[in-house]
Amino acid sequence: MYGYIGSMRTEPGRRDEVAALLLRSADALRAFGCRSYVVGVSDSDADVIWVTEVWESKEAHDASLDLPEAQDAIAAAMPLLTGEFTRQETTIVGGLGA
Amino acid sequence: MYGYIGSMRTEPGRRDEVAALLLRSADALRAFGCRSYVVGVSDSDADVIWVTEVWESKEAHDASLDLPEAQDAIAAAMPLLTGEFTRQETTIVGGLGA
Repeated sequence: MYGYIGSMRTEPGRRDEVAALLLRSADALRAFGCRSYVVGVSDSDADVIWVTEVWESKEAHDASLDLPEAQDAIAAAMPLLTGEFTRQETTIVGGLGA
Repeated sequence: MYGYIGSMRTEPGRRDEVAALLLRSADALRAFGCRSYVVGVSDSDADVIWVTEVWESKEAHDASLDLPEAQDAIAAAMPLLTGEFTRQETTIVGGLGA
């Protein structure tokens, strides 16, 4: 299984809007091989969002980015982001909720 | 809800041993307020483990560290770690699996 851990910095004050965009179609991802898609906001930085994901495969994750819902969310979110991202890709060993 | 994203660097070649220690009592954490506890290994660094967690509260997370199973796992893992950790604490907004 494939894990993705990413952060993004939003323009000041736009964090909650972006989080809502990310969550808009989260539940629908299950049908495309997503096991977990969790959005959290940093406790130490008011403009940073963290997303942690578990997918059946990297291919499933990458394909999901082409879904209309994902493309719409990305297009709507981009103007609200500064362009500062971090990303970690992992191979999931296991756990509760994996 | 409370989110925790952490990484740890293991001594060379000890990563899988540490991952197994972390997972040994993962399922038992559900009874203590854990919603998700996922262990992954970095795809870009052979000695780094990532753990992503979702808990009903920070208090539940912190209390779990005092559980005998957790103390045993920490004691067994410490000698296999270099001491290089990263950690992010988040407030979970929502998502699939949160």
